[in-house]
Amino acid sequence: MQLGLVGLGRMGGNMRERIRRAGHTVVGYDRNPEVSDVGSLEELVGRLDAPRTVWVMVPAGTATQTVVDELKDLLSAGDTVVDGGNSRWTDDEKHAAELGVKGIGFVDAGVSGGVWGLENGYALMVGGDEKHVKPLKPIFEALKPEGPYGYVHAGRVGAGHFSKMVHNGIEYAMMQAYAEGWELLEKVNSVDNVREVFRSWQEGTVIRSWLLDLAVNALDDDEHLQKLKGFAQDSGEGRWTVEAAIDHAVPLPAITASLFARFASRQDDSPQMKMIAALRNQFGGHAVESKE
Amino acid sequence: MQLGLVGLGRMGGNMRERIRRAGHTVVGYDRNPEVSDVGSLEELVGRLDAPRTVWVMVPAGTATQTVVDELKDLLSAGDTVVDGGNSRWTDDEKHAAELGVKGIGFVDAGVSGGVWGLENGYALMVGGDEKHVKPLKPIFEALKPEGPYGYVHAGRVGAGHFSKMVHNGIEYAMMQAYAEGWELLEKVNSVDNVREVFRSWQEGTVIRSWLLDLAVNALDDDEHLQKLKGFAQDSGEGRWTVEAAIDHAVPLPAITASLFARFASRQDDSPQMKMIAALRNQFGGHAVESKE
Amino acid sequence: MQLGLVGLGRMGGNMRERIRRAGHTVVGYDRNPEVSDVGSLEELVGRLDAPRTVWVMVPAGTATQTVVDELKDLLSAGDTVVDGGNSRWTDDEKHAAELGVKGIGFVDAGVSGGVWGLENGYALMVGGDEKHVKPLKPIFEALKPEGPYGYVHAGRVGAGHFSKMVHNGIEYAMMQAYAEGWELLEKVNSVDNVREVFRSWQEGTVIRSWLLDLAVNALDDDEHLQKLKGFAQDSGEGRWTVEAAIDHAVPLPAITASLFARFASRQDDSPQMKMIAALRNQFGGHAVESKE
Amino acid sequence: MQLGLVGLGRMGGNMRERIRRAGHTVVGYDRNPEVSDVGSLEELVGRLDAPRTVWVMVPAGTATQTVVDELKDLLSAGDTVVDGGNSRWTDDEKHAAELGVKGIGFVDAGVSGGVWGLENGYALMVGGDEKHVKPLKPIFEALKPEGPYGYVHAGRVGAGHFSKMVHNGIEYAMMQAYAEGWELLEKVNSVDNVREVFRSWQEGTVIRSWLLDLAVNALDDDEHLQKLKGFAQDSGEGRWTVEAAIDHAVPLPAITASLFARFASRQDDSPQMKMIAALRNQFGGHAVESKE
Repeated sequence: MQLGLVGLGRMGGNMRERIRRAGHTVVGYDRNPEVSDVGSLEELVGRLDAPRTVWVMVPAGTATQTVVDELKDLLSAGDTVVDGGNSRWTDDEKHAAELGVKGIGFVDAGVSGGVWGLENGYALMVGGDEKHVKPLKPIFEALKPEGPYGYVHAGRVGAGHFSKMVHNGIEYAMMQAYAEGWELLEKVNSVDNVREVFRSWQEGTVIRSWLLDLAVNALDDDEHLQKLKGFAQDSGEGRWTVEAAIDHAVPLPAITASLFARFASRQDDSPQMKMIAALRNQFGGHAVESKE
Repeated sequence: MQLGLVGLGRMGGNMRERIRRAGHTVVGYDRNPEVSDVGSLEELVGRLDAPRTVWVMVPAGTATQTVVDELKDLLSAGDTVVDGGNSRWTDDEKHAAELGVKGIGFVDAGVSGGVWGLENGYALMVGGDEKHVKPLKPIFEALKPEGPYGYVHAGRVGAGHFSKMVHNGIEYAMMQAYAEGWELLEKVNSVDNVREVFRSWQEGTVIRSWLLDLAVNALDDDEHLQKLKGFAQDSGEGRWTVEAAIDHAVPLPAITASLFARFASRQDDSPQMKMIAALRNQFGGHAVESKE
Repeated sequence: MQLGLVGLGRMGGNMRERIRRAGHTVVGYDRNPEVSDVGSLEELVGRLDAPRTVWVMVPAGTATQTVVDELKDLLSAGDTVVDGGNSRWTDDEKHAAELGVKGIGFVDAGVSGGVWGLENGYALMVGGDEKHVKPLKPIFEALKPEGPYGYVHAGRVGAGHFSKMVHNGIEYAMMQAYAEGWELLEKVNSVDNVREVFRSWQEGTVIRSWLLDLAVNALDDDEHLQKLKGFAQDSGEGRWTVEAAIDHAVPLPAITASLFARFASRQDDSPQMKMIAALRNQFGGHAVESKE
Repeated sequence: MQLGLVGLGRMGGNMRERIRRAGHTVVGYDRNPEVSDVGSLEELVGRLDAPRTVWVMVPAGTATQTVVDELKDLLSAGDTVVDGGNSRWTDDEKHAAELGVKGIGFVDAGVSGGVWGLENGYALMVGGDEKHVKPLKPIFEALKPEGPYGYVHAGRVGAGHFSKMVHNGIEYAMMQAYAEGWELLEKVNSVDNVREVFRSWQEGTVIRSWLLDLAVNALDDDEHLQKLKGFAQDSGEGRWTVEAAIDHAVPLPAITASLFARFASRQDDSPQMKMIAALRNQFGGHAVESKE
């Protein structure tokens, strides 16, 4: 089938390639003319036969909103927009309503896979009405890994991004779990070779996983991670997961601890720990006056 | 080679079977005569040629101490005791010293694998002197999974149990990660089928793992886990991991949160939340007298 | 001076009384005619001389928005609206902008004090332009406790509610601190009389506080809090504090833990702990099939 | 009455002064001859009439054990040793048993008050048999603050130090509560003057406390705490509180979070965050080989 694909960065570019390998026609548009198949969104839309499907793969927030607004003008009733970016699930209902005014369908797709996706396939979590999702099956089939896993129609509009967001929240806590264990092992004298302990865990243990495999790869590159700084960014999904939990009164202690550990890692000098130090100084007896 | 094996419960019994399948001779002893090969520890020791190796697979704490004490009397210089139970790493140095007085070697082995170990192999984390560990290689080879993973000589005495303990701490936080994500997805209206979301994650995602596979199995048995109570035991390892972290001033927020969630799950009515309720009542204006 | 006061519930009613005791004229309106001084908002506005000040003391969200909308129609340029409820700080900018269109000033006031406020005074945290805040000084003086504390002009519009919100976040963690300590003392055999330990802390210790005084009051009523359930509500402020922290990438581990403990206290049976139990069952060897 | 006092550091020296002001006789011993009243422990014991009371005020652990051992040799049946240091509660039973062999009584006393204690009095939490505690009442009366608070006989041997330890655990979480709130306020643009917000809270709020007064003192010295590093030590009590909680399966999320925040504050570069960074690099697509 035909697909318009907007956004040909690392993710979008590889996805174009994987879909084409499956025999579909992809018309890609990117602001960077070196990778773009067409000169404009308008041209992209003009190259597709109705009913058209346009997959948006641009950064969440303003960039996605801008493309959705433009596509609303360019597309017609019966066409479908897929947001495959990392949008907040609350944006999905808004986009579906905006496009729905003109009879344009909307589907949200959480996409996991990173740089491994081109070869191994992308895990897809999809939200939207069955009537909009069903015609996209050939594309989902092309993108997903082989075998019975890696694709789910999770529910109505928003469910795809919500599921992907929770996936990322879980990812935060799993990474934190290995990281905490690694630090503790590195601190202990009796354990000589933490890297080999991690490697041994790759089979037969309860904690074997793809992330563990990645951890071993990282330790093979740099056994004590001396080339790295203990500094971790966070993308929106971890934050949104905690916000969603607050909305639903669900306690998420491990995921939230993982998010906060990243926040703290980016502070040169912790303001709150200055206050702790200040209070300790106060009891310690510097010449201060108490209000009492 | 020959091995004495003390403790033929679910773990020990299957390990005897797996070692025998590899062509070794195992003399097993258990207090339960129905599964025991011999009538006493003394008889077990008598059936082995020197230098003897006796693998202890009984509950940590008193039971292990008792067997170590008895073996100290029965064995001779040059023999080796392996503690494959879930002993605290701090017990290992003590046992090594006690046995060392008579020239008996000591090796600690953390064993992972549960009921899947008989078929898939047991992951082994081993601590001890090379001179005691090396002769045990045939047994470790028999027990471990095929392939390059699943065995590590982690360091000196105690390193095996320490590594296994950290493995279990990581396991706690990984389980908590999936559990938090599952609860959040179950709470949200837009997601129709949480089980299928979990299933889809089994390939192509960052969070694929053996524990995720087990979670899907569990949801296939009981989609909303309605047959279960939200009640989770903890074994010693999670607690010891936090204690070891405190000893080394390592922050373990996600692992500790996972342990505390289990503690809380076992309380019918939380005492600390009673105090929160009481304080809220106090501001709320019941007729109470303040000290001020 | 003259003040219109909308909302005469437990807080608003006592505040009317305290302001009147200070010699000011208060025209109060409430939907409940038994406590209301006037029959309508319109009548309230009619009873005030320009420039008018109307203090809104109704629940945050829809109720506050409705009153703000009505006052926008009824008031004139030069008048001022004070929102003394527990509004989210993000509502304040919106309300200021809406009223500003007509030249009506807006001030947000976080108010603390509960049922003790009538006698002891209310702590006030105020946000807004100096030109709107300054004329309100007599009212703030009437409401606040005697002495140099209990009032702050914290900053621009929103700063009052933001400061009050953070106050409540701190309150959550302080309550949790005492609650955790109390539970631990209650669990320990060696300590006979936890109530008397708490009482002793009321002087000379680092942790003496008004909340501690309230805790002792509560224990005097019910030594082991046996009349209470371990069930704690949360108001919006704790949640908003965590959301604000996420917006600013500030780690708030203790405050967030306190919020999550309340969430958990309201669950009869924890869904996430069911998942933990399910995973433990899976390793424990029920006859399940793994995907691998 | 007569009291022997061993250890005349900042705490012990002030306590000697306060007890003397109340009219009692104190014979103080310290290794530092400039502050010591006598040249040796032996001389101290010789200067007291039987039955003697010797209060030990030296660092927990080895120093306290050494003094207890020496006093065991020097004292006689009917004498009493008080440990007023910060010993772990588990040491108390051991010391009581060791001294009890000779018929010497033992009392443990947790002492709070820091540099303010000389003037304001010291809060005392005491453990031991009534027969040993009762004769010490005049000393406790001399040390404690005036009024009905500041002293408790908490229970049997160990209960005093346990109560003091929990006091310190609560202190950790209260300090963390204010510190988190302060950092969040400092980050927000709308709030101009965080110090004045803190000051305003000193009356009429739910969170007023002595620690809040100290925080305001600290901010008066250094409004944005720019002279300090965000680096906080921890003494044993916070760690022991968490260990005691683990022993009793009590969840302490806020207190533990506070302890971990201090651990993290002392790390130049967080090892666990290096692992998080390494894992992020791995998905990010560096040329690594996965085991799969």
